[in-house]
Amino acid sequence: MLPRSLPRPAPPMAPLADLYHLTMAYALWRTGRHRDPAAAELFFRREPFGGAFAVGAGLGQALRSLGALRFSAADIAYLRSVLPSTTEDAFFDYLSTVDASEVTVTSVPEGSVVFSRVPLLQVKGPLLVVQLLETTLLCLVSYASLVATNAARFRLLAGPEMKLLELGLRRAQGPDGGLSASKYSYIGGFDYTSNVLAGKLYGIPVRGTVAHSFIMSFRSLEEVQPRVLSPLAGGKPMDLPSLAESWLQRDFQGLLDTYCVMRSGLPNFCAVALALHQLGYRAIGVRLDSGDLIQQSKDTRRVLRACGAHFQVPWFGSIPIAVSNDISEQSLEDFIREGSEIDMVGVGTNLVTCPLQPSLGCVYKLVEVNGSPCLKFTEEEEKMTIPGIKAIYRLYDAAGHPFMDLMALENEPSPSVGQELVVHILGRRGEATKVRPSAVELLHRMYLRDGQVYEELPSLQEVRSHAQASLNLLSPVHRQLRDPQPYLVAMTEKLHLLLAELQHASQ
Amino acid sequence: MLPRSLPRPAPPMAPLADLYHLTMAYALWRTGRHRDPAAAELFFRREPFGGAFAVGAGLGQALRSLGALRFSAADIAYLRSVLPSTTEDAFFDYLSTVDASEVTVTSVPEGSVVFSRVPLLQVKGPLLVVQLLETTLLCLVSYASLVATNAARFRLLAGPEMKLLELGLRRAQGPDGGLSASKYSYIGGFDYTSNVLAGKLYGIPVRGTVAHSFIMSFRSLEEVQPRVLSPLAGGKPMDLPSLAESWLQRDFQGLLDTYCVMRSGLPNFCAVALALHQLGYRAIGVRLDSGDLIQQSKDTRRVLRACGAHFQVPWFGSIPIAVSNDISEQSLEDFIREGSEIDMVGVGTNLVTCPLQPSLGCVYKLVEVNGSPCLKFTEEEEKMTIPGIKAIYRLYDAAGHPFMDLMALENEPSPSVGQELVVHILGRRGEATKVRPSAVELLHRMYLRDGQVYEELPSLQEVRSHAQASLNLLSPVHRQLRDPQPYLVAMTEKLHLLLAELQHASQ
Repeated sequence: MLPRSLPRPAPPMAPLADLYHLTMAYALWRTGRHRDPAAAELFFRREPFGGAFAVGAGLGQALRSLGALRFSAADIAYLRSVLPSTTEDAFFDYLSTVDASEVTVTSVPEGSVVFSRVPLLQVKGPLLVVQLLETTLLCLVSYASLVATNAARFRLLAGPEMKLLELGLRRAQGPDGGLSASKYSYIGGFDYTSNVLAGKLYGIPVRGTVAHSFIMSFRSLEEVQPRVLSPLAGGKPMDLPSLAESWLQRDFQGLLDTYCVMRSGLPNFCAVALALHQLGYRAIGVRLDSGDLIQQSKDTRRVLRACGAHFQVPWFGSIPIAVSNDISEQSLEDFIREGSEIDMVGVGTNLVTCPLQPSLGCVYKLVEVNGSPCLKFTEEEEKMTIPGIKAIYRLYDAAGHPFMDLMALENEPSPSVGQELVVHILGRRGEATKVRPSAVELLHRMYLRDGQVYEELPSLQEVRSHAQASLNLLSPVHRQLRDPQPYLVAMTEKLHLLLAELQHASQ
Repeated sequence: MLPRSLPRPAPPMAPLADLYHLTMAYALWRTGRHRDPAAAELFFRREPFGGAFAVGAGLGQALRSLGALRFSAADIAYLRSVLPSTTEDAFFDYLSTVDASEVTVTSVPEGSVVFSRVPLLQVKGPLLVVQLLETTLLCLVSYASLVATNAARFRLLAGPEMKLLELGLRRAQGPDGGLSASKYSYIGGFDYTSNVLAGKLYGIPVRGTVAHSFIMSFRSLEEVQPRVLSPLAGGKPMDLPSLAESWLQRDFQGLLDTYCVMRSGLPNFCAVALALHQLGYRAIGVRLDSGDLIQQSKDTRRVLRACGAHFQVPWFGSIPIAVSNDISEQSLEDFIREGSEIDMVGVGTNLVTCPLQPSLGCVYKLVEVNGSPCLKFTEEEEKMTIPGIKAIYRLYDAAGHPFMDLMALENEPSPSVGQELVVHILGRRGEATKVRPSAVELLHRMYLRDGQVYEELPSLQEVRSHAQASLNLLSPVHRQLRDPQPYLVAMTEKLHLLLAELQHASQ
């Protein structure tokens, strides 16, 4: 017999790192700089999918993963085998003591609407550890935020009523990719997942329909066993297939037209649903999976309403209609514009693989070492980092919409409500602007302080609600999915000055 | 302190299933059909990335995962909570006994070149189990084959000499997505991964360079500690920074030009590398990560050669030059066409997220139940399934290239070398064609028979070699990446007849 487990790493996992983090760790240790205090920040450079926002996600998992930062004996043995033979033994001894007990993390609350260049996370700690966390944090935040943003866009298009079902497990990057897809789609605004394991592990509501293979596995009504079903309210069991067949003889064929789905699928569904109704049961719904979904949903609804009226079954007209089959943002736009009768939409590939932009391109950059802010100098302005540990403020206008994220140095006083501020907007070289916020929010919270939990992480359900609330606050000009107005991100005068000084010094 | 483990499911994992597989399992059990003998096949409908081939991968992991097919008590408890309250208790008792002990699997050897509509895998077993495996198998094969194919395309463009390094961990769908990316990129023809965990778990060679953050963490030469380095051959330790600085004073500035990378990065590299050379060490290489990589590689090579000649260090001219920065198929084409001096290429996002086509779209279809072949009838020919359990033959021409994959019914005699065969090519309705193969290969092997390992799975290294061998056999007209000639897939007359009969019957 085959081994009774999937070939997957046993927890706790070795730090998720690229090799260069280990060679750099050695170099830092050798130069005696491994315990220098340092800070790094994680951000993305451009909002995905041509929109003006992203939904920050994966932060909870990233924070929890810090608890797993520990090199096992097996990890150390492996690293010995791949690092140069000149690597000193004492380095490996040191590595076996490394953990996140001196790490401090501030972050936007998970599910927040976030913008390019603004740190999602800031990490402080010993230089060796701070740089070692790069890949772990990027790996856990980048795809999570991408798929949460993608899901949020589907939700914005669908409106609040339409049910959205995530079906992407088979298209994901393996089992855990599928779990991430389910979790972060839910955070972004989906209602359900088809992934049973995600339901079990995260408590996400699960839904499903039936597969073609199930239908295909039946070749005649004789194969339906057991034939009898007791009425829900009790009483003599009835022969369900015969009951359904008797409905098929009735006059509702005249209610149908000539579409293919109308010729066999729908009359059969109606016959079975009416037979079930006779016994006190309600049919759950129908799914359309090919052809012109909008037209079919309208035709189906018309038939269901006609049946309901004709046979006096009032709920029949509102039987939920679900659709699937390569659903994209464009499909949802069409559904809404054409006034479809669709109640639930299943999305797989176009949700989990994010084909419009399969990577968010988050980066993780050192911003301070030994108390000195540092800068990655480059001729491409977009690739320049902004130095220093920051306080980040979200500024709101009189209508309650956020209009600007403002990065300040950590020790600057907070902007005041109603007072004029001079700021420098990113992407507008040199130009200073004045703004007067109606409300000011300190965007980051401290979740981990010197390795100790400082604020408890919210539940998945709370994160999902926060995401919807955060999206609802956005001004429609930023929330619109196509050609939105870019959201403003700015620096205080002091931070702008520091950046200019460091740029000057490195030229 | 945080819990010392990543929030991931404990192995053994519950079956990776969509909810509808469980509701269908109940329906089958209720009708007493759960043990009906059945067969299904896994295939994709179109070759990815506009090419004429794919590389089949994930088969080993899929086979191993069958060993994990078992519902734990916790799984059963969860399923009880989500299935309708009318679900009978005895079903859950039955579910707790389900495993893969009656499953038989045939498959193409992992790493084989594969084509659309031809089964990668065929599964036989009790109907309930066969349908339950759908998502597990799709999830493990689909992305694996996609990324292996993507990697194979990069390898074909790069040629056999250029080293290819996978750097995608931070862009993958979480940690296990990253592991899959590393493993299947290696199978597809990459040489190295930066992912230390993939190196540890799978034995893939790891490589890396240094991060910008490492460079940024140093602000002056004074921070370089310890300063002294002993010559490799022994002797008095020397002050390396001083040695490097003395080289910087030498006359090789004249060998450089005015490019940015030439102004600081390269002279500093040369000074340190020459200082190391004095002490008997060899520099490993340089990496270019922005700007015009082709031109910079040429400029860098010119400087390295000039240094090597000027200072009589022969190996200096062939120091490996590595590049990264959003490398795509187009980049590799440009590198080759422009005669770059690049020795190693690091690919991240464009390898692991497969942006040209982020999903292979594999499907899993029932082909036989109770000894009767079955068919999914649809008006779209491409979506039609081909009924029955099949024997699949790969036919070779006189030059040794495969020219056709031929699907036959299981009990048909094998095609004979040199004998004329009448076949029906898919996509050419009705038309019969005659072919005469110079060699015939039975494509599927039996790996699992009634739950017992029938043939041992090859090692990762063997799979990788098989993939390259399989790609090498392909005719250049099928192997070319753009506008290739489609590879022919055909049915025998008998299979074609069966398909026609079933189509007729279901109309």
